[in-house]
Amino acid sequence: LEQIPEDIKRHPSIAKQNRLLKKNLSSLILDRSYHHAAMLSLRDGDRRGRPDIVHFCLLEALGTPLNRELMLRVYVHTFDDKVISIAPETRLPRNCDRFKGLIGQLYRARRVPLEGKALLEMQPGTIYDLLRRVRHSVVLALSVLGKESTPAKVIEPLIHLDNPVLIVGGFPRGHFSESVTKLSDAIVSIDPEGLDAWIVVSRLLYEFESQSLLPVKRWNHIRKRQ
Amino acid sequence: LEQIPEDIKRHPSIAKQNRLLKKNLSSLILDRSYHHAAMLSLRDGDRRGRPDIVHFCLLEALGTPLNRELMLRVYVHTFDDKVISIAPETRLPRNCDRFKGLIGQLYRARRVPLEGKALLEMQPGTIYDLLRRVRHSVVLALSVLGKESTPAKVIEPLIHLDNPVLIVGGFPRGHFSESVTKLSDAIVSIDPEGLDAWIVVSRLLYEFESQSLLPVKRWNHIRKRQ
Repeated sequence: LEQIPEDIKRHPSIAKQNRLLKKNLSSLILDRSYHHAAMLSLRDGDRRGRPDIVHFCLLEALGTPLNRELMLRVYVHTFDDKVISIAPETRLPRNCDRFKGLIGQLYRARRVPLEGKALLEMQPGTIYDLLRRVRHSVVLALSVLGKESTPAKVIEPLIHLDNPVLIVGGFPRGHFSESVTKLSDAIVSIDPEGLDAWIVVSRLLYEFESQSLLPVKRWNHIRKRQ
Repeated sequence: LEQIPEDIKRHPSIAKQNRLLKKNLSSLILDRSYHHAAMLSLRDGDRRGRPDIVHFCLLEALGTPLNRELMLRVYVHTFDDKVISIAPETRLPRNCDRFKGLIGQLYRARRVPLEGKALLEMQPGTIYDLLRRVRHSVVLALSVLGKESTPAKVIEPLIHLDNPVLIVGGFPRGHFSESVTKLSDAIVSIDPEGLDAWIVVSRLLYEFESQSLLPVKRWNHIRKRQ
């Protein structure tokens, strides 16, 4: 996730979309579906311009019972070194263009909504800054280059720890930057061929719920509340 | 999923989008994000116009190892009684507008691509017609109104059956039509509050893989191939 970078702001394909949408350039999020031609010259181009991946991952994460029970915290670290904190009660737009609009708004105002409790907040920061804030017990990064494992084996040792952190790359291919590799306690792979980021998110969160017996506990909670 | 229905084709909001996209009306898919005003008069309106839900569910399903191992078949039954069969090797567009464009193409040509092996095929048919083709052993429908269960309990009895069928409603709220209820062997719920359709899909497929020991088998397959 990132804003349109300075070096390609004048590219014709971006100027065109901008005219069409009648929007301020600062609210445009880089998206390969529209900016492919402009992105050819970008460094690390194949890891960028896929807000849809972040969107799917967030929809998967925020809709889980784990999140509804306030047992999950979700952050996005952007390519341009911002950290987005997302409150568990946030309901994101299902439409990707509206999601991008929301993130554009966040880049301008640093919080959404402008008044009252913030649902999304953006602060400058590297992934290292983010981890320092989280007071993590352990950090695992998921990558097809990581050590052979399964979702069940990845989650098992985390169940009884305080604030274990899972890092999933919200990009289509390419690998983590060196800083992520360095600050992770381990890099693990849950499938030999690699999986879409949103599938990784959904499996790990469900496995965590499953091993915490949350599916059964949820029914018991509901009965108690009635 | 459905084409713009006849009764609202002349509504101003639809004419406007049509002009903007310079497209033939027959290739437009009903989408609440754009056709909200036009949809107010539609019967069953709250179960319609959400192609994004079907899109997410398909991305979840087609990206699973279960699908890659050819152990899954995915069908979509549309609101206007068409059955879409999707070949396991299909890579759908990640962008929802392109996905809708593809489905619009499918409504016109009945197959995609036009030549060679069909990846997507559309035939007229009810959900009953679809089930007759599948030669199912058992049919379970997922609904928040169903019998209390968990993903693990739903999947356990299916593991050793031939062609068990799971039906997930690709709509935001409202419930299955009476015909789905009648032809299901059971209606089950995997969470007391109900979950987004794509989360239901991802959990059940992962649970099926997990109980079939697929995560471990995948690593063994790969080792053998090397």
